[in-house]
Amino acid sequence: MGMGAAKSCIAAGLTTYGVDLNPAACQALRDAGAEAAGPATDGFAGELDGVLLLVVNAAQCRAVLFGENGLAAKLRPGTGVMVSATISAADSRDIAKGLAERGLLMLDAPVSGGAVKAAAGQMTVMASGGKDAFEKLKPVLDAVAGKVYTIGEEIGLGATVKIIHQLLAGVHIAAGAEAMALAARAGIPLDTMYEVVTNAAGNSWMFENRMKHVVDGDYTPHSAVDIFVKDLRLVTETALSLGFPLPLASTAYTMFANASNAGFGREDDAAVIKTFAGITLPEKKEK
Amino acid sequence: MGMGAAKSCIAAGLTTYGVDLNPAACQALRDAGAEAAGPATDGFAGELDGVLLLVVNAAQCRAVLFGENGLAAKLRPGTGVMVSATISAADSRDIAKGLAERGLLMLDAPVSGGAVKAAAGQMTVMASGGKDAFEKLKPVLDAVAGKVYTIGEEIGLGATVKIIHQLLAGVHIAAGAEAMALAARAGIPLDTMYEVVTNAAGNSWMFENRMKHVVDGDYTPHSAVDIFVKDLRLVTETALSLGFPLPLASTAYTMFANASNAGFGREDDAAVIKTFAGITLPEKKEK
Repeated sequence: MGMGAAKSCIAAGLTTYGVDLNPAACQALRDAGAEAAGPATDGFAGELDGVLLLVVNAAQCRAVLFGENGLAAKLRPGTGVMVSATISAADSRDIAKGLAERGLLMLDAPVSGGAVKAAAGQMTVMASGGKDAFEKLKPVLDAVAGKVYTIGEEIGLGATVKIIHQLLAGVHIAAGAEAMALAARAGIPLDTMYEVVTNAAGNSWMFENRMKHVVDGDYTPHSAVDIFVKDLRLVTETALSLGFPLPLASTAYTMFANASNAGFGREDDAAVIKTFAGITLPEKKEK
Repeated sequence: MGMGAAKSCIAAGLTTYGVDLNPAACQALRDAGAEAAGPATDGFAGELDGVLLLVVNAAQCRAVLFGENGLAAKLRPGTGVMVSATISAADSRDIAKGLAERGLLMLDAPVSGGAVKAAAGQMTVMASGGKDAFEKLKPVLDAVAGKVYTIGEEIGLGATVKIIHQLLAGVHIAAGAEAMALAARAGIPLDTMYEVVTNAAGNSWMFENRMKHVVDGDYTPHSAVDIFVKDLRLVTETALSLGFPLPLASTAYTMFANASNAGFGREDDAAVIKTFAGITLPEKKEK
């Protein structure tokens, strides 16, 4: 998604710098017209008006911003930092505090849409933060987002909306797996079950997308089981911090954690169905 | 749905009789062109080639077919009976046995689509049964269905597909309620949360349809909590009969049963959200 977002910035006419540990990705971005791209921000951090941080988790956010040779200390005061990892509201607030101490403006701005939407400059952004942060990062938002939801001014609200979205996404995958597993047990052909559900009120975006992998017996990881172990853990931690019960999401977390422990962590998240014993699932057809 | 299906039969040119305990419904069907309509089948049962049974549960199916002045004893041998209630596979097989003893052909044929699709002759039918039953009931299927899924020959498969569909529908409503309840607790405006989810991969048909009722604070029962208490009970019984675990659907059943016991049984099924304590939900706007 970082590559797609960076290319969208270039396409929008913004002077764009790329940072990635992978040299091939940096070369590709230079070829696409980036001013510079490399493994570190030395040499151009002081030139930046805005930073878009697209990493996996809060630890990576902190390493980039506040770790050894960290970016935050090198940015000019007033620079906008758009933090777009899926992280907890508490982490989001903590990172904002670290940035504020250096005079930097943060947008709590998780994204969705995957690599395809990112490449098209059409990511969905769910953002919270001060008006000054929104203004400072407007050129970046205009370049990378198809839709920006302004959740509020308080840092942490953007993170929470993304986490609640992931609650639904995770429960829907697990529910799809549970339904298809029961169908297999009952002797229903899974392609028929899939066709009925995807044409009826029991459908979900995740059922339609992920249960196709089960029907095809293809667990190539478009998004892995371990991503939902992480995200449903964030969901659970969020509920714990609010003293709130989550009967379904807690159960879904258990199902994904069990799938990971069973050795399916790096398979497609639809592989959560493999933890149901006593059924025979479709196998991948040889081409 | 019975009224819509009956009118679709009339529109298709079939000689149509209606049976309903409600005199107004019978009058409406006579006005629409039915040959006859009343509270009982006396006088025309022997004329029928096919019967479409659209009732709420297995007890009603048995009462109509095998109860006092029951229909089954009055039908000619070889008549097709399309059983379209949402019932268990075991009930479906038991009813088929009773019909077979009288030389009658059964189609295990639950439907979905609601009153709107029924009125348009566009119900979705998930059917299992012998070829003779499908052939005998083809004029009725052609008249009432937009789509017929042929699940197999074995009675009970149609019922099971419908029940697994209801598993997903029920879990998706409960998950939607859980997500919106957490959003309320976290201080996220629910209309914003609704808009984000319905435009992203966390969406489901049920989230989009039912959580709008929560956003509007309107629990007018389009489909009531008690319907999902019944349907998730069937889901649970199906899994028990197959010795299969259902971590999410069992939890969703608990949530709907609790909502019913709390006094919300006849409210819209979105009212399952009202069992989450410690939150403030939107109230209905006065017009």
